[in-house]
Amino acid sequence: MAKDCVFCNYPSRKIILENKLAFAIYDRYPVNQGHMLLIPQRHFPDVFSATDEEVLALNSLTREVRDYLQGKYNPDGFNIGINLGKVAGQTIFHLHIHIIPRYLGDVKNPRGGIRNFKENIVRY
Amino acid sequence: MAKDCVFCNYPSRKIILENKLAFAIYDRYPVNQGHMLLIPQRHFPDVFSATDEEVLALNSLTREVRDYLQGKYNPDGFNIGINLGKVAGQTIFHLHIHIIPRYLGDVKNPRGGIRNFKENIVRY
Repeated sequence: MAKDCVFCNYPSRKIILENKLAFAIYDRYPVNQGHMLLIPQRHFPDVFSATDEEVLALNSLTREVRDYLQGKYNPDGFNIGINLGKVAGQTIFHLHIHIIPRYLGDVKNPRGGIRNFKENIVRY
Repeated sequence: MAKDCVFCNYPSRKIILENKLAFAIYDRYPVNQGHMLLIPQRHFPDVFSATDEEVLALNSLTREVRDYLQGKYNPDGFNIGINLGKVAGQTIFHLHIHIIPRYLGDVKNPRGGIRNFKENIVRY
């Protein structure tokens, strides 16, 4: 546990789903309705540092989050994504996996999905 | 195995790394140098359908791909992403996980990472 880490000190009343090794919360700055984060209970920065048990716990929670979001918002698809390192956009150095529900018509041309993150940023 | 699936019929000479349940190839339309795809050997569309063994094989291969790319291109970070469903940008319905190396300066403002995929597409 890291003293100054927002995820290590996350208020339990805001946790939506949880198992022994991972928990799920809503993203504070959602890209789409129902944007959630999956987070290991243990503090470590990247997915490469997860134990097999943590990988399976995160995977199991991913399915639960999918079911939860499907029941609540009925999305038409999902993007799952991880930013690893500051140059990749990571701002909190406790692993978190974005689960972003997608809805028919939420972008004009969905082809490419997460593949588009770069081409478009460059246009700023 | 699906007869018409490009990943089920992928030429073995183009496979970069492989284990019993998963393999890694270069993306045909790379977003950055070293953009690779991790793919289960078995044909299924989404990560929710993977067995525990497949999840661990994909995770193990992710580490190998990281080491391979680190040695070859020395990136400063990575984005990992999955598009699930047509509205999320999925075009081949055999699960594939994007591993995109990131390099200092490859975009003007990296903050947000995969979170930016939507905001920017909307500007088209």
